[in-house]
Amino acid sequence: MFKKILIANRGEIAMRILRTCKEMGIKTVAVYSTADKDSLHVRFADEAVCIGPAPSKDSYLKIPNIIAAAEITNADAIHPGYGFLSENSNFSRICQKNNIKFIGATPEQIDRMGDKANAKATMKEAGVPCVPGSEGLIDSYEDAVRIAAEIGYPVMIKATAGGGGKGMRRVWNEAELKEHWESAIQEAVAAFGNGGMYMEKLILEPRHIEIQVAGDQYGKACHLSERDCSVQRRNQKLTEETPSPFMTDELRERMGNAAVRAAEYIGYEGVGTIEFLVDKNRDFYFMEMNTRIQVEHPITEQVIDYDLIREQILLAAGTPISGANHYPKLNSIECRINAEDPFNDFRPSPGKITELNIPGGHGIRVDTHVYSGYTIPSNYDSMIAKLITTAQTREEAIAKMRRALEEFYVEGVKTTIPFHRQLMDNEDYLAGNYTTKFMDDFVMDKKYEI
Amino acid sequence: MFKKILIANRGEIAMRILRTCKEMGIKTVAVYSTADKDSLHVRFADEAVCIGPAPSKDSYLKIPNIIAAAEITNADAIHPGYGFLSENSNFSRICQKNNIKFIGATPEQIDRMGDKANAKATMKEAGVPCVPGSEGLIDSYEDAVRIAAEIGYPVMIKATAGGGGKGMRRVWNEAELKEHWESAIQEAVAAFGNGGMYMEKLILEPRHIEIQVAGDQYGKACHLSERDCSVQRRNQKLTEETPSPFMTDELRERMGNAAVRAAEYIGYEGVGTIEFLVDKNRDFYFMEMNTRIQVEHPITEQVIDYDLIREQILLAAGTPISGANHYPKLNSIECRINAEDPFNDFRPSPGKITELNIPGGHGIRVDTHVYSGYTIPSNYDSMIAKLITTAQTREEAIAKMRRALEEFYVEGVKTTIPFHRQLMDNEDYLAGNYTTKFMDDFVMDKKYEI
Repeated sequence: MFKKILIANRGEIAMRILRTCKEMGIKTVAVYSTADKDSLHVRFADEAVCIGPAPSKDSYLKIPNIIAAAEITNADAIHPGYGFLSENSNFSRICQKNNIKFIGATPEQIDRMGDKANAKATMKEAGVPCVPGSEGLIDSYEDAVRIAAEIGYPVMIKATAGGGGKGMRRVWNEAELKEHWESAIQEAVAAFGNGGMYMEKLILEPRHIEIQVAGDQYGKACHLSERDCSVQRRNQKLTEETPSPFMTDELRERMGNAAVRAAEYIGYEGVGTIEFLVDKNRDFYFMEMNTRIQVEHPITEQVIDYDLIREQILLAAGTPISGANHYPKLNSIECRINAEDPFNDFRPSPGKITELNIPGGHGIRVDTHVYSGYTIPSNYDSMIAKLITTAQTREEAIAKMRRALEEFYVEGVKTTIPFHRQLMDNEDYLAGNYTTKFMDDFVMDKKYEI
Repeated sequence: MFKKILIANRGEIAMRILRTCKEMGIKTVAVYSTADKDSLHVRFADEAVCIGPAPSKDSYLKIPNIIAAAEITNADAIHPGYGFLSENSNFSRICQKNNIKFIGATPEQIDRMGDKANAKATMKEAGVPCVPGSEGLIDSYEDAVRIAAEIGYPVMIKATAGGGGKGMRRVWNEAELKEHWESAIQEAVAAFGNGGMYMEKLILEPRHIEIQVAGDQYGKACHLSERDCSVQRRNQKLTEETPSPFMTDELRERMGNAAVRAAEYIGYEGVGTIEFLVDKNRDFYFMEMNTRIQVEHPITEQVIDYDLIREQILLAAGTPISGANHYPKLNSIECRINAEDPFNDFRPSPGKITELNIPGGHGIRVDTHVYSGYTIPSNYDSMIAKLITTAQTREEAIAKMRRALEEFYVEGVKTTIPFHRQLMDNEDYLAGNYTTKFMDDFVMDKKYEI
């Protein structure tokens, strides 16, 4: 087992990793930027090394400084957390070269799953359902008609050089394809000087449902069921839950098996997440793989009595997994408490927390790095806490969340607590009836202003 | 179901009850003394009524004021918590007369189990093992010899009028009985003018292990396994755990069955606890029944996914229990964090909390009513928080406790955190090797001073 782990991260995830290391009897090294000198992770680590100033490129992303900190402190492993260098194959490779165990995927696995086209091709080989589409570029309108008929309408035609919606069209039938084909090509030529087009099936109002997987160094993987992360704003998850209210035993079996197949196909080492889009017919499509721990991992831990950080460390140290899959025994919901103003387009609200009350009691878990008197720096993402409730049923988990949000107060900065309070009263949310489009027409109600 | 519950208590248990009421959609009324006006339970209840000043006899024990508060606010039930009026049959009876449901045992049950001799006689009738002893007074030395032989040495001879150890002798064999019999009688006569003697088996270095039970209004009861509360100082529990490290499946079955038999024999309504002494041969003896919720109830909730306060409310509302017993699926430990100085004979340390950090993360539950800036009044018991850890194994629960205690800091007052930190390093505690005598030779080590 590792003797000392350097935690190449900050905020709540640095605290999260630190805690498990302590529980496992492993010494810890915190690294921090000057902006983070008063953080709890600096206070509670056995050793702490300043690795430079904010912004991140000068500290948390500065590989030589982190490697130097590991060497100075004699750390034998590095846990990258999420974000920053957690999916940087170059960092993983440099750790390897320096004989420091990177607690995460191998450089090859990160490279393979990090590139979207590469990942999709790999998943197709593994027999994991991907969004159906043309294989590469489409040569002619006739081919477009044929491919669209094969994959089924509606489809999306896209310019290969595209971006910002240019040369992109939603097409619902052959008449619309005829109408838009040439104009899309012309728009792409005008915008990018490249008229190459390809096509993908349009997944309407999908759910974002991901499967947690774990793989060992001996080729064996298992899944730990799903998390529903469909409540998103501009691709940022706001709240997550498990089980998904949309899930059936049969769908979980199909998705879980696909995820295990994917992980075993690439010999995946460590814990990771396979994200899928799920349509209303419960067909699912590979979206991407996150080769790291995720923000929303606690809800899985809550419903299966598991410690995913501990598992990461054990897997990195060569422990084999039993291979059995894990199924939710309870219901758990996570609300991300961000220092943002939900009444003002979720604008970041850094500053000093002058008063703080963190909820507690039965079924409540809070992961945070802040305290009363802490100043939230403006340099990093705005998440200040994760509030997690766990109960026998979804209704009880929601009831717990509602009362915990009521107890949670943060003075000095604006937070997303009012948003979550409104969400927990939203009829569609309560009915479990939401897709990734849910936030498109969500309007904050002034009555939730604190 | 009740529409509004008045909580006739303060501190963490008032918060505990309040939280479950909120989660069940039941309105709440807090009552408070003037010394408690800044308490969280006052802030979070739907309504709050001041019922007088400290000390408790002028407020939390003042039945007319509490009944008046319930009538003014139209509460249809009262939850008494623990302590104060929770085992006061008169209060339970007055609630009944005023058509307010007392969430707890009936007046008759409280009377029956509240008196020690009465309770012991009842339990003998129910076939629950009690400490063996003489039936009433012993007429002669010859009878004493015969009874001692029947119940087995060592025994304790006790003056019926006794107190303060006068006329009381530990006797290990017949020679000692002969030696002490007359002198004990003479001492009793001299001290109390009454030489009446009785005898009980001496339980050596017992464990205090209690069984949680729940009974419905239809005569059915179940048990929720045990809690080991042997770590006590002057009969005050300091830390509790479940399962007991001393427990076997076979003993749990025997003790659980006895507890269910006891509860069903008296038609017990609500949740309650049957406390036993367990000797080194795993023979167990009824000690007393607590006809109320207990401080240490959360560890049971943690290992069986249960909400005991919710269960109390449901049972009081007439919900039947399923009758199945519940067994621990995990390990849980509670440390009582008291505002006391463990380096100074656990002397109370009331005052203002100037800084506070409450631990969090995986497997941590904290039940508290305090916050940074809160002033702990000197009028009440000194418990300020319950720190509860839960894990797959006892070793992991202890490791979690150790790291959570490290994160827990309270400035402005002394607390028992150093004691618990030392306890979590104690070899006998780690080995699960402790009895109610454990604290007799526990000496605080200065190295744990914060």
